[in-house]
Amino acid sequence: MQKNKPSKNWKDSLYEIIFEADTTAGRIFDIALLICIILSVVTVMLESVIGIQQQVGKILYTLEWVFTIIFTLEYFARLMVVKYKRNYVLSFFGIVDLLSILPTYLAIFFYGAQSLMIIRVLRFLRIFRIFKMVKFVGESNVLMQAIKASKYKITVFMITIITSVVIAGTLMYLIEGGENGFTSIPRSIYWAIVTMTTVGYGDIAPQTNLGQSLAAIIMIMGYGIIAVPTGIVSAEMIQQKSKDKLSTQCCPVCLKEGHDADAVHCKFCGSTLNESDKSQ
Amino acid sequence: MQKNKPSKNWKDSLYEIIFEADTTAGRIFDIALLICIILSVVTVMLESVIGIQQQVGKILYTLEWVFTIIFTLEYFARLMVVKYKRNYVLSFFGIVDLLSILPTYLAIFFYGAQSLMIIRVLRFLRIFRIFKMVKFVGESNVLMQAIKASKYKITVFMITIITSVVIAGTLMYLIEGGENGFTSIPRSIYWAIVTMTTVGYGDIAPQTNLGQSLAAIIMIMGYGIIAVPTGIVSAEMIQQKSKDKLSTQCCPVCLKEGHDADAVHCKFCGSTLNESDKSQ
Amino acid sequence: MQKNKPSKNWKDSLYEIIFEADTTAGRIFDIALLICIILSVVTVMLESVIGIQQQVGKILYTLEWVFTIIFTLEYFARLMVVKYKRNYVLSFFGIVDLLSILPTYLAIFFYGAQSLMIIRVLRFLRIFRIFKMVKFVGESNVLMQAIKASKYKITVFMITIITSVVIAGTLMYLIEGGENGFTSIPRSIYWAIVTMTTVGYGDIAPQTNLGQSLAAIIMIMGYGIIAVPTGIVSAEMIQQKSKDKLSTQCCPVCLKEGHDADAVHCKFCGSTLNESDKSQ
Amino acid sequence: MQKNKPSKNWKDSLYEIIFEADTTAGRIFDIALLICIILSVVTVMLESVIGIQQQVGKILYTLEWVFTIIFTLEYFARLMVVKYKRNYVLSFFGIVDLLSILPTYLAIFFYGAQSLMIIRVLRFLRIFRIFKMVKFVGESNVLMQAIKASKYKITVFMITIITSVVIAGTLMYLIEGGENGFTSIPRSIYWAIVTMTTVGYGDIAPQTNLGQSLAAIIMIMGYGIIAVPTGIVSAEMIQQKSKDKLSTQCCPVCLKEGHDADAVHCKFCGSTLNESDKSQ
Repeated sequence: MQKNKPSKNWKDSLYEIIFEADTTAGRIFDIALLICIILSVVTVMLESVIGIQQQVGKILYTLEWVFTIIFTLEYFARLMVVKYKRNYVLSFFGIVDLLSILPTYLAIFFYGAQSLMIIRVLRFLRIFRIFKMVKFVGESNVLMQAIKASKYKITVFMITIITSVVIAGTLMYLIEGGENGFTSIPRSIYWAIVTMTTVGYGDIAPQTNLGQSLAAIIMIMGYGIIAVPTGIVSAEMIQQKSKDKLSTQCCPVCLKEGHDADAVHCKFCGSTLNESDKSQ
Repeated sequence: MQKNKPSKNWKDSLYEIIFEADTTAGRIFDIALLICIILSVVTVMLESVIGIQQQVGKILYTLEWVFTIIFTLEYFARLMVVKYKRNYVLSFFGIVDLLSILPTYLAIFFYGAQSLMIIRVLRFLRIFRIFKMVKFVGESNVLMQAIKASKYKITVFMITIITSVVIAGTLMYLIEGGENGFTSIPRSIYWAIVTMTTVGYGDIAPQTNLGQSLAAIIMIMGYGIIAVPTGIVSAEMIQQKSKDKLSTQCCPVCLKEGHDADAVHCKFCGSTLNESDKSQ
Repeated sequence: MQKNKPSKNWKDSLYEIIFEADTTAGRIFDIALLICIILSVVTVMLESVIGIQQQVGKILYTLEWVFTIIFTLEYFARLMVVKYKRNYVLSFFGIVDLLSILPTYLAIFFYGAQSLMIIRVLRFLRIFRIFKMVKFVGESNVLMQAIKASKYKITVFMITIITSVVIAGTLMYLIEGGENGFTSIPRSIYWAIVTMTTVGYGDIAPQTNLGQSLAAIIMIMGYGIIAVPTGIVSAEMIQQKSKDKLSTQCCPVCLKEGHDADAVHCKFCGSTLNESDKSQ
Repeated sequence: MQKNKPSKNWKDSLYEIIFEADTTAGRIFDIALLICIILSVVTVMLESVIGIQQQVGKILYTLEWVFTIIFTLEYFARLMVVKYKRNYVLSFFGIVDLLSILPTYLAIFFYGAQSLMIIRVLRFLRIFRIFKMVKFVGESNVLMQAIKASKYKITVFMITIITSVVIAGTLMYLIEGGENGFTSIPRSIYWAIVTMTTVGYGDIAPQTNLGQSLAAIIMIMGYGIIAVPTGIVSAEMIQQKSKDKLSTQCCPVCLKEGHDADAVHCKFCGSTLNESDKSQ
């Protein structure tokens, strides 16, 4: 971006402060905003604790409105300076910004709606923008690509899990029955999920011998099967890494890429690869 | 498959609709079937919830019969159009299709048998047939091969786990005894499985110092040992991946190997690779 | 082993039946033994269940003695036919075989000692000897080597975990105190192990805000830290696998091994490697 | 280090005993110290058990003072012989050594402070110094580097987890409400952490259908998402390993790379590799 442009109107300046983080003013704005978001989220949390709410409820209520007004002003400022307003409003952060201010206004009419303000925590994801954004975005992309590349494997795995918990839950419903807490099939499936994911609350637990035997099988299955998604993601990640090791050279004749680091000739057209390009 | 065959009798047309998913009619049939399966499974689930059963039990009972009749007709249709009837009846989906309709009829004689209808959820696995079947089947195969390739390692691991829980369970039975919930060796082994798989219901928990010390060792063992199957599957998956990438072709001039599957020219000497060899 | 030896005395024949599994008689003996072991373990388990013990206690008691006598005879038979008696008695299976028969005799004097018979389950590990022993032993070795190769990393990991749970347990003892179940430091450390390994019985659980915050940190630590041993074992396994891929060729001049599959010259002395040897 | 220096004053001798572990006296000192640390930690633990405290409280109290005096003397000895006193006092072990003796003196004024002595367990980390230190430090470094290299990925993962539990906790607070144990947002977030990390105490558990459905989603998420850090660490570890194996040397004749670290001759053309290049 050209920073030494001779004249800039106030909209462009404000845009740079609000939407970017590479000027001093922009950084200060973003950090101030992050602090507001954290304080605002803490306020909402504290308000839900009965003891605290009774003691300093009024202060928290005031703070809530202060933050809401700040965020409302910010939302309109963003809306004003942005060029493609529609794009901002419909973007992920545009929607989150709007949803972050609505609950306080809604709470005037519907008691309890202020808890929805916790959605402001999503605004916190802007943090990636501020601190070495490029690094973080790059790493997020590696994670996202690894997950995307394994999407079919993960779907197969998820459908296997869901089918297993439905069948396991129903069997336990038939074996244990309502008197042992397995009062319905959905509740038994809930138990099967609690067990297979190794969470194990213990609010529902099998009492009969047959039920405990089946439960033991489900547990061992759930315990061992975690190796599958882990293996998938590990294999993907390693491949993502090895992709980085491919040379960035491009064939001078056919212009195709993706050559191994040790290649002398282009594997597509056979012409000799540029040696000097290789050393880059 | 040749689609522009001049004449087809109704059996072949029906076969294509029911058993395949690459014509429009076939896709519509399969999607309609999936919706029926899901609705049918939801009906069975809801029927098991006492509150709902009392309110809309009659509607659910009617729906149950409607789906059973649909599935019965479908089963006979499949049986009629398929060439090798025996193969279909004895295939995985043939057995599941039959088991999916039996429980409703059985429920006339045995109360509660309708819960077995949940087996219909297995029919849902047909989903892989419909949406980009090839991709899914390919990915399932990778998963299956990785698991098959590690079957000896997994067996060794499983026998180690089973031996450990039997010994751990018996020791806890001797240490804690019936008054702390460890009323028998099978029950103590059940506890050992609950603990080693990190499920941890807490319905049975050691109370003595010695018991808690042994439990702590079992927990740490169970926590750390999960690394073993995960490592096995990860290593297998990575190997499966690297196998896919390298072609087995060899340069006809310099005789070097290790070319990528998409290579046309040898990356070492630049001569053209043998195309026919590639297709192997 | 030479099987067509002209004459064998009865000791050698018996040795072959008892200690080896590659003759028909040897296989039958081993399978019969495995069945006895399983039945014997099941007998011990059933005897611990009060209901069953009251009904068929006498039958079980008789069965127990039958198996003990069988195993006693087997132990003396092994002792008789083996050449190096001392080696057998002090070997892993020699000790297990002895410990498997002692509890029944001890139970005459000390009531309850028969539960120790469960140690017979260790005899079951002989199963590896029978079914495709070589495969299993090979795979066990890969697992063992991967674990051995990571022994320093695993020790570092274990000491970190132990130090963490000692500190976490003590902090929780100070924060929560006896009224919330954290009655002593050892008990609090037990809780920390239950939590960090994600078992989570819930028999002891923090009640104060500070305690729950610390518990949350321990949980996230325990949840994330499992990635470390998994990563260690995965990396080791992959290396074990790639070792298999090294060519088995040996330099004809300096006789050193460990050459890459694509090596033309010995990497130690520079002499040309034997091409025909390579293709093996 | 030169050991055959003709004359050494007592300070240097003491320094070698206290701070180093490669002389016999140094080893004996370090092992004696480790035993004192373990005994001291056990004393603190036992003192917190009410039963034991009532029986042998006086002995434990005396032992506590004995160990404190030993450690105090040791601290001053270290301070005396070390050259850069400031560096030692501000080093990790310097601070731990000081914190290890303070609680006993504090306990004179503040009852209960002696539990803080458990910090002595950190002194136990000196164990790495004694037994094959180089190996352990090397392995710790591999672990540390793998974790450092993945720090951005781990941060992205942690922020995702924290954002998820805050949102999940708040939703559960709104759905379940105080009557089912979700009395405040912070407490609901605590529940979300307990659930997502698969600890699952069961002290708070959802009761409503909607709550149990959301809980099931959180569990499956927490169960599957562990694959992500595991994949990250596995990929890093494998890369760390492969880095160690390949030397960066290049053949002076054919200029090919990729030689093993122990190679003397180029594996492609057989010419001698440059020794000086190797040592880089």
